[in-house]
Amino acid sequence: MHKNIEANTRSALDFAAGHQEENLQHLVEFLRFPSISTSPEHRGDIERAAAWLAQRLTGIGLDRVEVIPTGGHPLVYGEWMGAGDEAPTVLVYGHYDVQPTDPDDEWISPPFEPVVRDGNLYARGTSDDKGQLYTHLAAAEAFFRTSGGPPVNLKFLIEGEEEVGGPHVNSFVEQHREMLACDAALISDTAMVNAQTPAIVVGLRGLVYVEIEVRGPGSDLHSGVYGGVAHNPLQVVAEIIAALHDEHGRVTIPGFYDDVRPLSDEERAELSRIPFDPAGLRAEMGAPAVWTGEEGYTALERMSSRPTLEIHGIGGGFTGAGQKTVIPARAVVKASCRLVPDQDPSVVAQNLERYVLDLAPSTVKVEVRTIARAQAVLVERDTPAMRAAVEAYRRGFGSEPVFLRSGGGVGVVVSLTECLHVPVILMGFGLPDDNLHAPNEKLSLDNFQRGICTSIHFMSECAAQRRS
Amino acid sequence: MHKNIEANTRSALDFAAGHQEENLQHLVEFLRFPSISTSPEHRGDIERAAAWLAQRLTGIGLDRVEVIPTGGHPLVYGEWMGAGDEAPTVLVYGHYDVQPTDPDDEWISPPFEPVVRDGNLYARGTSDDKGQLYTHLAAAEAFFRTSGGPPVNLKFLIEGEEEVGGPHVNSFVEQHREMLACDAALISDTAMVNAQTPAIVVGLRGLVYVEIEVRGPGSDLHSGVYGGVAHNPLQVVAEIIAALHDEHGRVTIPGFYDDVRPLSDEERAELSRIPFDPAGLRAEMGAPAVWTGEEGYTALERMSSRPTLEIHGIGGGFTGAGQKTVIPARAVVKASCRLVPDQDPSVVAQNLERYVLDLAPSTVKVEVRTIARAQAVLVERDTPAMRAAVEAYRRGFGSEPVFLRSGGGVGVVVSLTECLHVPVILMGFGLPDDNLHAPNEKLSLDNFQRGICTSIHFMSECAAQRRS
Repeated sequence: MHKNIEANTRSALDFAAGHQEENLQHLVEFLRFPSISTSPEHRGDIERAAAWLAQRLTGIGLDRVEVIPTGGHPLVYGEWMGAGDEAPTVLVYGHYDVQPTDPDDEWISPPFEPVVRDGNLYARGTSDDKGQLYTHLAAAEAFFRTSGGPPVNLKFLIEGEEEVGGPHVNSFVEQHREMLACDAALISDTAMVNAQTPAIVVGLRGLVYVEIEVRGPGSDLHSGVYGGVAHNPLQVVAEIIAALHDEHGRVTIPGFYDDVRPLSDEERAELSRIPFDPAGLRAEMGAPAVWTGEEGYTALERMSSRPTLEIHGIGGGFTGAGQKTVIPARAVVKASCRLVPDQDPSVVAQNLERYVLDLAPSTVKVEVRTIARAQAVLVERDTPAMRAAVEAYRRGFGSEPVFLRSGGGVGVVVSLTECLHVPVILMGFGLPDDNLHAPNEKLSLDNFQRGICTSIHFMSECAAQRRS
Repeated sequence: MHKNIEANTRSALDFAAGHQEENLQHLVEFLRFPSISTSPEHRGDIERAAAWLAQRLTGIGLDRVEVIPTGGHPLVYGEWMGAGDEAPTVLVYGHYDVQPTDPDDEWISPPFEPVVRDGNLYARGTSDDKGQLYTHLAAAEAFFRTSGGPPVNLKFLIEGEEEVGGPHVNSFVEQHREMLACDAALISDTAMVNAQTPAIVVGLRGLVYVEIEVRGPGSDLHSGVYGGVAHNPLQVVAEIIAALHDEHGRVTIPGFYDDVRPLSDEERAELSRIPFDPAGLRAEMGAPAVWTGEEGYTALERMSSRPTLEIHGIGGGFTGAGQKTVIPARAVVKASCRLVPDQDPSVVAQNLERYVLDLAPSTVKVEVRTIARAQAVLVERDTPAMRAAVEAYRRGFGSEPVFLRSGGGVGVVVSLTECLHVPVILMGFGLPDDNLHAPNEKLSLDNFQRGICTSIHFMSECAAQRRS
C-alpha cells in the first residue's frame, strides 16, 4: 500500500479509537428521532432526522450537502471529491427511517431513548440502519480530522423510505446517474453470521407485499343471531391462508417456483460450509423449535435462497379484553412473499392475486392490493471493491468474511446495480440477534467500533487497489 | 277479564299513548351512559347507569329499590307487592350494560348520543337491552300514574354483566330464591321475526367462549431474515381455524355433535312454517350471499337449533397502514361455540381445548382459556304466563306470535328456570336488523311504543288468568 495512505489510515484508526464516546453521542442523538416512515404522524420526526443528518454530513467535512425533497420522505445527499480524479469514488447508501415499535410494552427501555446494557446499545434503528450507517460517517470524519480527508472520493445517499419500500430513491438513482457516478457502492444494512464471522451479502431476496381484504356482512353481526348463516370473514381468511402452503411446506400459488433459479451444487456446498448451529438459531428466535419449512432444503438455504410466504398481520373482529360475540364485517391480511433470482415480482403478485380470488367463496368479496414489489439480486464477486471489502474485514475484525445470500432485501440494491453498473458491497455489522423490526433492537458496541475501523480500511483498500 | 282490570288497562294504555315523548326522553338519558361492561375504563359509567336506573325505578313507584354490589358490576333491584297476595308476581329481568362500540368510525351518529332517524332510535343499547327493558318500566309507570299500580306484583332484577357473561347474577338468583320468588319471569332481550310477526323465544343456544393463544418466537422477527425457519404463529392459527370445520360445514371437534338433541319432525315442521325470506336475510346481513353452513339443515334451523363455531377476532402482527415485514411472536384468537340442548358447555370446552392442542405443531406453544360458559335452554309452553304473553302480543301488535328458538343466549334464563322453577317468557320487541353488537344499533320507535302496550297487556292478562 502507498506510504501516505498507510500513515493516514493509522491516524484515522487512532482518531476513531480515541473518539468512541463522541461517536456514540452522535449516534444517540440520531437515534432519538422517532423517524418511523410508515406512520404519517411521524412525518415531522422524519424531517428532523433528515435535517440532523444533513448537518452532521456538513459537520464531518462533506460538500454539497442537501436535503432533497421527493414525493415521499426526503433524501439526504452529501459528497466530497477532494481525493481527486485518480482516486476511486465510493457511494455510501443507508437509511435514516426506522420500523414501527409495536408491541411497545415489550421494550425493556423506551425505543427512542437509547441506553447501553451489557455492551449493546438498545434503541429502534441501532442496527437497522442508523447505527450501521453511522460507522461510515465516523470513518470519514476520522480521515477529515487527521489528514484532510479520506483516500477516496465519497458520496452519501441516505433515504427515509427503506422500511416502507418507497419508490423515490429508485427513481432518483435512475434520474441522477451522473451525479451518483462511482466505482463502488457500499451499504451496511445486513448482519454477520456471528460475532466472529463477518459476512458479505452477495444475494438479496426480493419482495411482493400485499394486503388481502375480505368483506362479508355489511356490518358486524351478532354471532348468536347469524352464526350458521353468515360466512365469517375471519373464517374465510383462515381458510385462504391455510391453503397457501401444502403439507410439504411449499407455497401453493400456481407457478410460484417456475422461474426460481435452482441453487447450484457449488452454492449449496458453500452454504453448507457456513458455521450453522440449529440450537443457536432456535435460541436466537426464542421459539420452541426451528420450523422445518420447505421440504428438501436446509435451514440456511430456506433463510437465504428459497422463496417464502409470510403472514404479517390479520385484522378484523374483536381482540380486546373479555368477550364480544361478533361476526366481523371484514378482515384484512397483510402478507408478503420473499423472492429469489429470477422470480419476477409482478408475475408473482399477479399469480398470488388470481389464486386468492380463486380460493375465495362467493359468500364474500375479496380484494388483493399490492403494496410493494422488489426484485431479488445477485452481486458479482470478482471485483476490486469486493477484494477491498474482504481485506477490510480481515483487518477490522481479524477474520475472513463469508459470502452469503441474505433473506431480506435492501430495495435500492437493484437500482444501484442496474443504473450505475457498479458492484454493490453489502458489508454488514449487525448480528443475527439484533431484534430488527422487533422490540429491543440493539447494536453491539464492539461491532460499532470495529465497523468504523473496517470502513476506514475499506476506503484505504479501495484507494490502494486503484494505485497498485 | 275483571271489570276493574279492564278499565285500569285502558287508562294505562291511554297514559302511555299520551306520554311517548317523556318515555323517549327517559330512554335517551339511559342510553347516554357508555355502560360497556367489558372495558375496565367504563366502570364509572356502569355505576352511573345503575344509579340512574335505581332512581328511575323509585321514580315510577317501586319500593325496596337498591343497587346491589357484586364481585363485578352491580345489580339493580326494585319491587312492588301492592297488587296483593291474590295477584300473581312477575319478575322482569333486563340488563343495563352494553357491547363495545368498535369499529367506531362506522357509526353514522356517535353511539352514546341517541338520535332519531326514519322512525328509529340510534344508539348503542337501544335494542340490546336498554330500550327493550325500558318498555316494562314505562308500562308499570302507566299503571302507577293512572290506577295506583299494576294488576300484578312486580320485581325488577337488572344486571350489568350480561354482555360479558358475568357469573354474578346467576349466583345472586341461586342465593335469593325467596326474595325473587314469582309466578313468571319476563325478559325482553330478543327479536321478532319481522315488524309484522312477533316471536316468543322458547329455546336459547348456550355458549362456550374461548381465547386461544399461540406463541412462537420470543419476540417479533424480521421475515426477511427468519422467513423459512420460524413458524409464523399467524400461519399456525389460520391452519388451526381452517381445521375446525370440514367441507360439509360441520364443526370437527371430536364428539361435538354427540349430545345434540336432534330436532323432532314436529319442530322442523314448525320452523318451516315461520315466514322466511332468504333474499331478505341476505339483505339484512348485507353480505354477498347466505352461507350454506352445516349441510342438511335449513337456514332457520342453523340459526336457532344447531350448534356452531365462530371466530370473533384474530390479534397479532402488524395491521396498521403500509407495510411491516414481521413474523409476530404471538397470535390470539377469540372464538365461541353456540350450543343447543343437551350439549354440556364444560364438555365442549374440554373437547375444544384438547382438539386445538392436538392440532398445534411442536414449533409453537398453545394455550386455550375458557372465558365464558352457558347452557342452552328450552322453555315450557303450556303455562298461564305463556298464554298471557300470546294474548298480550295479539292486543299489542295485532298479530299472532310465533314460537321459535333463538340463536343467541341470555345467560340468566338457565338460573331463573332452575332456581325459581317458573316459566321464563322471552318476549322480544327487537327486529332482526337492529345491528346488535355492531355499529348503528337501533330500535324501531313503533316497536318501542307497541312494546310498552304489550307489556301493559301482559300484566293485565297475567292478573286475569289468575282470577278466571
